[in-house]
Amino acid sequence: MTPTYFWEDFKVGESSEMGRRLVDRDEMIAFAQNFDPQSFHVDEAAAKASMFGGLIASGWHTCAMVMRMMCDSYLLDSASLGSPGVENVKWVKPVRPGDTIRAMRTVLESRRSGSRPGMGIVKTRWEVFNQSDELVMTMEGYGLFKVRDPATAL
Amino acid sequence: MTPTYFWEDFKVGESSEMGRRLVDRDEMIAFAQNFDPQSFHVDEAAAKASMFGGLIASGWHTCAMVMRMMCDSYLLDSASLGSPGVENVKWVKPVRPGDTIRAMRTVLESRRSGSRPGMGIVKTRWEVFNQSDELVMTMEGYGLFKVRDPATAL
Repeated sequence: MTPTYFWEDFKVGESSEMGRRLVDRDEMIAFAQNFDPQSFHVDEAAAKASMFGGLIASGWHTCAMVMRMMCDSYLLDSASLGSPGVENVKWVKPVRPGDTIRAMRTVLESRRSGSRPGMGIVKTRWEVFNQSDELVMTMEGYGLFKVRDPATAL
Repeated sequence: MTPTYFWEDFKVGESSEMGRRLVDRDEMIAFAQNFDPQSFHVDEAAAKASMFGGLIASGWHTCAMVMRMMCDSYLLDSASLGSPGVENVKWVKPVRPGDTIRAMRTVLESRRSGSRPGMGIVKTRWEVFNQSDELVMTMEGYGLFKVRDPATAL
C-alpha cells in the first residue's frame, strides 16, 4: 500500500495536532520499573515526600508516548526511513498519572539529500501539553522520508 | 539511607563505564509494539526488505535501555532530583536484537544553582557502543542533584 506522506508532503511552517493520550498509571509505573526506577517514578510514598509531591512519569516514557502519537497520527502512513536523532528535549513540567497529554508538530526545515536524492530530511518541533494546556515537553528532531518522485531534478 | 553521590561528586572531565546490556529481541519488539510500531521495528519480514536489512530497535528503546544503565550504575545511589532534559540525541548506527551495548558517561559541566543553593546541575555526555565497539548512540543531558552540604558558601 502506498503511504500518504512522502518527503514532499512535509511543508515548512505547517502545524498539526497529533491527538491525545491518557497517561495510564499502571503503564507509567511499569515503564519506570523497567527503564527508570528512580523512587519518584515508582514509589508512591517516596514520590509524595519528594519535591514532586507525587508520582511523575519518566521523561523517557513521555517521549515514548509522544512517539506513539506521531506513529498513529502520520508516521505509520508515511514513507518513513527512520531518524538520525532528536535535540533540545525539554521536560518542562511533570507529567502525572491520569493526565491527558496532547501534542502538536510543526515542520521547521526540510531538504532533499544531495548524496541520496531518493531521500529527504525533515526537521520537526513537537510540543506536548497537558489537560490544563500547560506545556509539559518540547523537542525537535529529524525524520528521513522517501521522495515521492526521485526522478525530479534536485 | 544516605546516597553515595551528591552534586559535589560529579567532577568535570571524569568518565566512567556504565556496564553492559543484552538487547533482548522480545523486549525490543514489545517496546516498539507499544510505542514505535514502524514496520522495521516490529515486522521481521518488512525489516528484512527495508534499507536496514533486519529488525532494529526503536531509538527510544535504546534511550530507555541507557537510562536503566544510568540508574543501575550510579543514579539510584545518588541524590538525584530529576532532569530538565537532554540534547543532541544521535542514533548513529542501528541497534539490533542480540547486540550487547555498553555505555560510558563523561561529566561535561557542573554548576551550583544560584537561586536554589541546595541543588546543583551536572551536564553529562553518554556514549553507547555495540559488541563490535561501534558507536551506536550519543547524547548529552542535564541532571539535578542535591548538594551534600548546602551550608557551604556559593
